[in-house]
Amino acid sequence: MKIGIYGYGNLGKGVEKSIAQNPDMELEGIFTRRDPSTVRTATGAPVFMAEQVSDFENRIDVIIICGGSATDLPEMTPRLARMFNVVDSFDTHARIPEHFETVDREAFRTAHTAVISGGWDPGLFSLARLYMAAALPDGRDYTFWGRGVSQGHSDAIRRIPGVKDARQYTVPIAGAVERVRAGEEPELNTREKHLRECYVVAEDGADQALIEKQIREMPNYFADYDTTVTFITEEQMKRDHSALPHGGQVIRTGKTGEGNRHVMEFSLKLDSNPEFTGSVLVACARAVGRMNARGEFGCKTLFDIAPADLSSLDAAELRKHLL
Amino acid sequence: MKIGIYGYGNLGKGVEKSIAQNPDMELEGIFTRRDPSTVRTATGAPVFMAEQVSDFENRIDVIIICGGSATDLPEMTPRLARMFNVVDSFDTHARIPEHFETVDREAFRTAHTAVISGGWDPGLFSLARLYMAAALPDGRDYTFWGRGVSQGHSDAIRRIPGVKDARQYTVPIAGAVERVRAGEEPELNTREKHLRECYVVAEDGADQALIEKQIREMPNYFADYDTTVTFITEEQMKRDHSALPHGGQVIRTGKTGEGNRHVMEFSLKLDSNPEFTGSVLVACARAVGRMNARGEFGCKTLFDIAPADLSSLDAAELRKHLL
Repeated sequence: MKIGIYGYGNLGKGVEKSIAQNPDMELEGIFTRRDPSTVRTATGAPVFMAEQVSDFENRIDVIIICGGSATDLPEMTPRLARMFNVVDSFDTHARIPEHFETVDREAFRTAHTAVISGGWDPGLFSLARLYMAAALPDGRDYTFWGRGVSQGHSDAIRRIPGVKDARQYTVPIAGAVERVRAGEEPELNTREKHLRECYVVAEDGADQALIEKQIREMPNYFADYDTTVTFITEEQMKRDHSALPHGGQVIRTGKTGEGNRHVMEFSLKLDSNPEFTGSVLVACARAVGRMNARGEFGCKTLFDIAPADLSSLDAAELRKHLL
Repeated sequence: MKIGIYGYGNLGKGVEKSIAQNPDMELEGIFTRRDPSTVRTATGAPVFMAEQVSDFENRIDVIIICGGSATDLPEMTPRLARMFNVVDSFDTHARIPEHFETVDREAFRTAHTAVISGGWDPGLFSLARLYMAAALPDGRDYTFWGRGVSQGHSDAIRRIPGVKDARQYTVPIAGAVERVRAGEEPELNTREKHLRECYVVAEDGADQALIEKQIREMPNYFADYDTTVTFITEEQMKRDHSALPHGGQVIRTGKTGEGNRHVMEFSLKLDSNPEFTGSVLVACARAVGRMNARGEFGCKTLFDIAPADLSSLDAAELRKHLL
């Protein structure tokens, strides 16, 4: 299967490395808005200007779009779905229905197949929520994220005047996880589920107390959480915080019969969020190629993909070795 | 959706209770090889003789077959698949390919849909293995079972002369689980993964030392494991060992990029194995009914079922609330 990568940041690099781990996949090219001559790829894949993508209409089976959810993907995914089968990792939960409709319309009328919101949340965690709810309808699920770097929250801190660099870790509150796992089915507000750890490099002479206050009081991002702010040096940032780990868990507890209790849990501990997310997107691309070949057009999510379509093994091998 | 239950042991009762938790499901009848007048059902559902099932050909959407894998299901599932859409929990791993072929032939030529090997292993654990391998191709997975009651092993002990009753718990070895979770990817033999705890009620005057020896040396069941045997009274058995808990976990560890490590884990802790398994079978029945209505005939497994088909929510609700 011939794959293209559209957008080459951390996620695009993760996809590139994952393709090298999947022998049934071939990377045809990387498309970037930067000057291609300035881009060095991890595996030596060829780089083209974003506009050149239309020259590849018959040479690429699936494009994996690695842009941001705020402004890139709402524009890129519907546009590229007119020419290609596509996969994206759109993760603005509230806007998924709208994004789905737009992409579905463009993909369907041009006989393409698209998968949106691939990755792990949305993605594998969404699947865990669905399977768990189907298996245990009388129950309740909880999702905890972390400990891991939130790029959105790190960026929000970087926009504060006087901040040179920042890294924000989302941390699940251990006591809350334990209460959920114990089947208490507690009501937990935002503050009771996660806390936020911020590491900040301030510019020389910046008012650290003011920066800390601005972080703690930032609406949506930090105001509803217990937040710690630690000022560190540029060297410490580079040494201790250059990786992008993440993870989390989905837990569902519930009852059957006369009060028999059950606990289901799916958890991830990831050294590199973009590399793991990229790897899930590559599996989605495999499914997209197969669904398109069967004439299944329009927009899909992982909820619509028969699991076997994600695997490089054929159906008989899967039944024999994994069932 | 109108459901029938064929076979009414622990699993059949679990299915019956689960149907009561799913408002889109209706239990049409329970079919048993016993005298129906002697059977009292958990929810007051009507009971019929097994042979009467053919009278229900146009009144039942899906039959959930609750028989044993050794001799019942290889005969029942293909036979019933000629008249009905069916679901079973066939769990003899080595014979799944053969069972699949037989059921597929009968279901396909009569335009029915069958799902075999539903439940949690095979079932949800199989799904975990597939999704994890697709997301992390360069890795290794491990499945641990327990702590929980193995009915097959309990039955094997009961067949020893002088044994009145027995309960066998499969117990994962904590150190092995920890090594796997730590990403060591160890080679583990049978004895290093699980141990077997046996609780036995001996008949008066039976030779307990001989019983213990026969358990420990029983090939396939116990010889390859560290096994403990504890003799207890009938009262203790009833008081401490009448539940059927089970559970376990699937763990996959692997790498992406330049040595970034990831750990994926799916775990279950179940108060009642048959009730939870029954609940998964009911979700499978929902998918079977929908697939049949779309003209998707033949034998399927959970690998072939788009997750959305298992849920009572429609696609738009799923995207809005669970994605």
